[in-house]
Amino acid sequence: MGRLVDPWKVVEEGLDEKENLILESLTSIGNGYMGMRGNFEEDFSGDTYLGTYIGGIWFPDKTRVGWWKNGYPEYFGKVVNAVRLMGIHVEIDGVPLDLHHASVQNFYRELDLRTGIFSRRFTVQMPKGLVFVRAERFVSLPQKELLAISYAVTPHFDGQIVMKPYLDAHVTNRDSNYDETFWDMLAEEENEDSLALLTRTKENLFGTPRFAVGAAMSCWANGLELERRTLRSGYVEAVYKGTMRAEETAILEKYALCFTSRDHEEKNLVTLAMRAASRAREVRYEKLRAEHGGAWEDRWAACDVEIGGDDAAQQGIRFSLFHLQGTYTGEDERLNIGPKGFTGEKYGGAAYWDTEAYCLPFYLAVAGQDVARQLLRYRYLQLDGAYENARRQGLRGALFPMVTFTGIECHNEWEITFEEIHRNGAIAHAIFYYTTYTGDQEYILREGLDVLCGVARFYTDRVHFCKRRQQYMIHGVTGPNEYENNVNNNWYTNRIAAWSIEMFCTAAGQAPAERRALLGVTEEELSHMRDVASRMYEPKDEGQGVFVQHDTFMDKELLPADRIPEAERPINQHWSWDKILRSCFIKQADVLQGLYFLGHLYSKDVKKQNFDFYEPMTVHESSLSPCVHSILAAEIGYRDKAVEMYRRNARLDLDNMNNDTGDGLHITSMAGSWLSIAHGFAGMRTVGGLSLAPFLPDAWRCYAFQFRYRGRLIRLQVVDSRATVVLLEGLPLSMSLCGIKRELKTEISHTLTE
Amino acid sequence: MGRLVDPWKVVEEGLDEKENLILESLTSIGNGYMGMRGNFEEDFSGDTYLGTYIGGIWFPDKTRVGWWKNGYPEYFGKVVNAVRLMGIHVEIDGVPLDLHHASVQNFYRELDLRTGIFSRRFTVQMPKGLVFVRAERFVSLPQKELLAISYAVTPHFDGQIVMKPYLDAHVTNRDSNYDETFWDMLAEEENEDSLALLTRTKENLFGTPRFAVGAAMSCWANGLELERRTLRSGYVEAVYKGTMRAEETAILEKYALCFTSRDHEEKNLVTLAMRAASRAREVRYEKLRAEHGGAWEDRWAACDVEIGGDDAAQQGIRFSLFHLQGTYTGEDERLNIGPKGFTGEKYGGAAYWDTEAYCLPFYLAVAGQDVARQLLRYRYLQLDGAYENARRQGLRGALFPMVTFTGIECHNEWEITFEEIHRNGAIAHAIFYYTTYTGDQEYILREGLDVLCGVARFYTDRVHFCKRRQQYMIHGVTGPNEYENNVNNNWYTNRIAAWSIEMFCTAAGQAPAERRALLGVTEEELSHMRDVASRMYEPKDEGQGVFVQHDTFMDKELLPADRIPEAERPINQHWSWDKILRSCFIKQADVLQGLYFLGHLYSKDVKKQNFDFYEPMTVHESSLSPCVHSILAAEIGYRDKAVEMYRRNARLDLDNMNNDTGDGLHITSMAGSWLSIAHGFAGMRTVGGLSLAPFLPDAWRCYAFQFRYRGRLIRLQVVDSRATVVLLEGLPLSMSLCGIKRELKTEISHTLTE
Repeated sequence: MGRLVDPWKVVEEGLDEKENLILESLTSIGNGYMGMRGNFEEDFSGDTYLGTYIGGIWFPDKTRVGWWKNGYPEYFGKVVNAVRLMGIHVEIDGVPLDLHHASVQNFYRELDLRTGIFSRRFTVQMPKGLVFVRAERFVSLPQKELLAISYAVTPHFDGQIVMKPYLDAHVTNRDSNYDETFWDMLAEEENEDSLALLTRTKENLFGTPRFAVGAAMSCWANGLELERRTLRSGYVEAVYKGTMRAEETAILEKYALCFTSRDHEEKNLVTLAMRAASRAREVRYEKLRAEHGGAWEDRWAACDVEIGGDDAAQQGIRFSLFHLQGTYTGEDERLNIGPKGFTGEKYGGAAYWDTEAYCLPFYLAVAGQDVARQLLRYRYLQLDGAYENARRQGLRGALFPMVTFTGIECHNEWEITFEEIHRNGAIAHAIFYYTTYTGDQEYILREGLDVLCGVARFYTDRVHFCKRRQQYMIHGVTGPNEYENNVNNNWYTNRIAAWSIEMFCTAAGQAPAERRALLGVTEEELSHMRDVASRMYEPKDEGQGVFVQHDTFMDKELLPADRIPEAERPINQHWSWDKILRSCFIKQADVLQGLYFLGHLYSKDVKKQNFDFYEPMTVHESSLSPCVHSILAAEIGYRDKAVEMYRRNARLDLDNMNNDTGDGLHITSMAGSWLSIAHGFAGMRTVGGLSLAPFLPDAWRCYAFQFRYRGRLIRLQVVDSRATVVLLEGLPLSMSLCGIKRELKTEISHTLTE
Repeated sequence: MGRLVDPWKVVEEGLDEKENLILESLTSIGNGYMGMRGNFEEDFSGDTYLGTYIGGIWFPDKTRVGWWKNGYPEYFGKVVNAVRLMGIHVEIDGVPLDLHHASVQNFYRELDLRTGIFSRRFTVQMPKGLVFVRAERFVSLPQKELLAISYAVTPHFDGQIVMKPYLDAHVTNRDSNYDETFWDMLAEEENEDSLALLTRTKENLFGTPRFAVGAAMSCWANGLELERRTLRSGYVEAVYKGTMRAEETAILEKYALCFTSRDHEEKNLVTLAMRAASRAREVRYEKLRAEHGGAWEDRWAACDVEIGGDDAAQQGIRFSLFHLQGTYTGEDERLNIGPKGFTGEKYGGAAYWDTEAYCLPFYLAVAGQDVARQLLRYRYLQLDGAYENARRQGLRGALFPMVTFTGIECHNEWEITFEEIHRNGAIAHAIFYYTTYTGDQEYILREGLDVLCGVARFYTDRVHFCKRRQQYMIHGVTGPNEYENNVNNNWYTNRIAAWSIEMFCTAAGQAPAERRALLGVTEEELSHMRDVASRMYEPKDEGQGVFVQHDTFMDKELLPADRIPEAERPINQHWSWDKILRSCFIKQADVLQGLYFLGHLYSKDVKKQNFDFYEPMTVHESSLSPCVHSILAAEIGYRDKAVEMYRRNARLDLDNMNNDTGDGLHITSMAGSWLSIAHGFAGMRTVGGLSLAPFLPDAWRCYAFQFRYRGRLIRLQVVDSRATVVLLEGLPLSMSLCGIKRELKTEISHTLTE
């Protein structure tokens, strides 16, 4: 019974309904275009969270808050639960199959990470005997609009089997207010061998685009006869029926295809979907499955991280890699990486600062430069919205949104929306990271400069001059540590703001005059910007030798987090908000986030002093926290801490550590699992050229991974005390290995010392 | 056309529909038991905000906020819009009368403050000629359950008149979510001469009391015949009809009576209401009106403030006095003073800290000791709820709620609910004010000590010890200036907390040991409390010689409020919240609130230095701001500023200064109008005995008011340069007049110098 640790699978034996939401999240599948939770095909009246999501389909739900603040966004952008594609009602001898009521034996479900196939098998005790069911499905990598299902029923007695595959657009969001629905039903159609329906997101107050979805299904049934078809508003169904002899298997193959008005004209959607469904049926399940498996095989060849001697760690990283690749492919520049991907609705929105801060380095190394550049481009395309966000706050420049689909802010906590302005800096840093990693300096002139200009202008206007200190200050912010709100002079925010302004000034200074003129940037503006950057106040505590999180942090009662009783953790589920705010406890890296981002500017000693001061007060209750600590710990030589933090990151959802996996997976922070290994254990640095300085975690026998770097594919493997770098593709390269300059032509290696 | 300034009336000539909500608010009437906005009896399809409210009838609506914080209250307690009592559908020659569509001439409405009667008159152009209408109503002071209406229609042609008086329980709150209704319809009944209905607030999730309301009406019609009665779910109606000759008047008198399960058994409500309605009809309108007018006359005799030479100022204070007396009478210890009284729904809740901070001194002086003690008792009775509020925040002691009906917090902005903890201090101060005013020191032993103990325990637990400074601090608060949130060491909060703790320690020290034992207070606890109070950190700026609003206030860009462009005021309607928070601009007295409350502990020089520093940065966008500034300005000799602030307070709603009068009136701040005159212009102080030190505002010829003090009724009149104090009732008294100790036997006077 229970979840098993397997290096290539998520496996659960037995049906424990209390765990069902968690398992539904863990067994979600996606292909960058669409995805769905691990819901059952057949009926299930127990606790379930039905979710099918299509990339870029969202609804601007009216913002509802207790007390309105001037400047609040008008809507909260929700990920919309879309037409239920997978459903099959099953009846055996006239009794509907519902695993909540049925007597279920030997229930087994498995997500095969290697092939991207989710399957289940179980036996049900019926009055006349046992029935064996095997279900399997995948959303296709080669054909992104396709969900294919194979559903097999084998009675161990002579019995009548009915299967009713259906499409149902009567779905609601779990986070809808008053169970409001977000869809209008437009049409249902049938032709010779397929059924389709068309829906469109409801009229709304905000004049934003509405999306139409056309979905069709076509089936192939072995042992069953098509009896009839039913079309109702927003619902289509085919009924297959047959009498099976004992041990004979009825197999239904269902091909559900989904097209949207994001990519096609609305009037063609039904036809497109019906044709595609018919074609898929002609190809048949086994062939589609093989093509899909082959595509995943190619992916793994490029991205796998192998860990020897620690299956839990191995499963964690593969689980992360699987979901990251199923969430974002870079094919569509209008998409980004939602915090829950296709696994849930929580947080809404399509892009948080997580994308730049954590995901970009991962996709750059694993999926390559073109994919990563799409992420940068997403912000470039939303620059108008970012200028509008700033304008609504009465400020110049561009404020990239905390949560968005379109560039316009759609988050509505004032302490976040208006105050968590460090997010702008992460976007500047992503441009820095991309250009130093790739050497593609031209990118700054093409698109980057516009983004940097908006960021620099915003920060320059957001500061005020403090007469007493004769320095610039930033009041009223929330730093990365969201367990403090509305603080003054958050070191991280002040630092990243000054650094972003400097970066723009440097880039603008290097740009041709006509490029600067396009931006309307004058020498006077640049000179003021330089003044702001150079006279930005940075709170420091000389006694402790640390940067101070914000102005009055040192007045707090400073306690280590291990003084919090276990029964009161996570504190965000036990303490009232004011108690959290007043405490010294830190949700996620804050000063340390700055020392990670700007690591090339700070010595190991500075990092160590700040790590020693802040990490003990950190509760890591954001999924984004452990990886930064893992990387810094690795750099300053705290290997056990680095490994502990890696585990916390890589197995967060697998072990439901924050007691919230049922809501969906922490997709963006999964990139942190990879970063912990690459930037942490392997010591990868890319400012001023590539360097690696690996160590091997004590409990591991070996590990290896490959990454793309400036047109090359490079593999690092660390076995016992030997680190080997292999050039798999591309031209020779000068790099640093364990602090020594080396020329990588085919392979170099180094013996590690303790 | 327009609103007229009249010393005894609110008058509007002409029907300007854009101003209708404002006029509805201004012409609200109430009697402490129930009240209603100045809605029309007949139909009106234009912009109207229908509101009929009954004291203590509320609904625990589910708290809805954008993002849930741990510890948030489960409900938001809403003032419920109750059965529409006043309605009369009118038809003339078959055409329904609706002033939005009718051709209306000579529209006139008037609230007579002296008699508490709201009346309207107007002429309507009908196809056959003109029709004159006169409507008048009052909620009775002597019979609190009674609303009496006289509605007269005079056609200037022969025509058919239909009047359909009704009761309608199909009302919704303006602040309901998704137009949810809060009432279940239970019964409709009729007997010989009256119609009744019974409703009950809906089942709700929170297990709080549900309220039933039985309302009945009985009518007397002159010139019309009763044609039929109609009873539908939640609606009863009588139809009167007649054909009038030209210039004949059809008069309908409607008596609507309203009883609730707060005072009577639910099963008796309908019978009670029907009997009372029949009785009222027997007594007849004119007699009831005379009794009501007589009761108001008695009130005015005791409370009037006369101002000579300034009708606008005169109207302002009488308007304030009228609404304060119509909102709270002290008869029911379960009631308190809601911020909108019976004039609107905004803010919900029945009691804010406004009650103790502003209203109590007014009711104590004008309505007397027994009424004021009911206000103190309200908190005493809710002490269990206050302990529960603190417990939910993980703290000891009692935290009185920001907004409540039952003592349990029902406000849901974290920066207010969890952080505006200075409200506890206002309650301690009210006990101090009451006991020093009345000399009733026994009150502390009876009830006050329990309240003070809860307050002191809360503050003592809410501080933390700052090692660096070796002092106690209070982090994470919102002071009275709600334009800053989550600040540290707000001087006012720290000061009132230390003072409240001291007050408790002193009172506990003087109490008999068994009384202390009842509270479980030990010497050790008291000793720790004394330590906290004596080592409480108080931010000061020695350079400027002022108390500092909070830790980092002096780092702000400090600008005078007159630098804000007129088009951007009020800033809360123009600036985004973060801009407001970062600015230096102050919503209402903060440091100065402390210097007002604890005025006996600070010199005039200290008050002046702080006033000079803070007042110029104050935007007075809370209705509670001007009075405190008026009083302090008077004390330090800034008479013009004192008068300016008085006007701003007394005419806030009459002149719709904050552009929000349409939502309802600012009831609690109306007490500030009286305080500005009594504590401000008249210099009344009551710590250590009574003293008066009046001046006469330049623009005034004279002013006079009376107040109750320790069993006496005392009148102060200031005419030109002569201040005279007259003992109207009670024993002789030692007091101070203009700084000179005097014996008041019948009358004393003093010549004022400039």
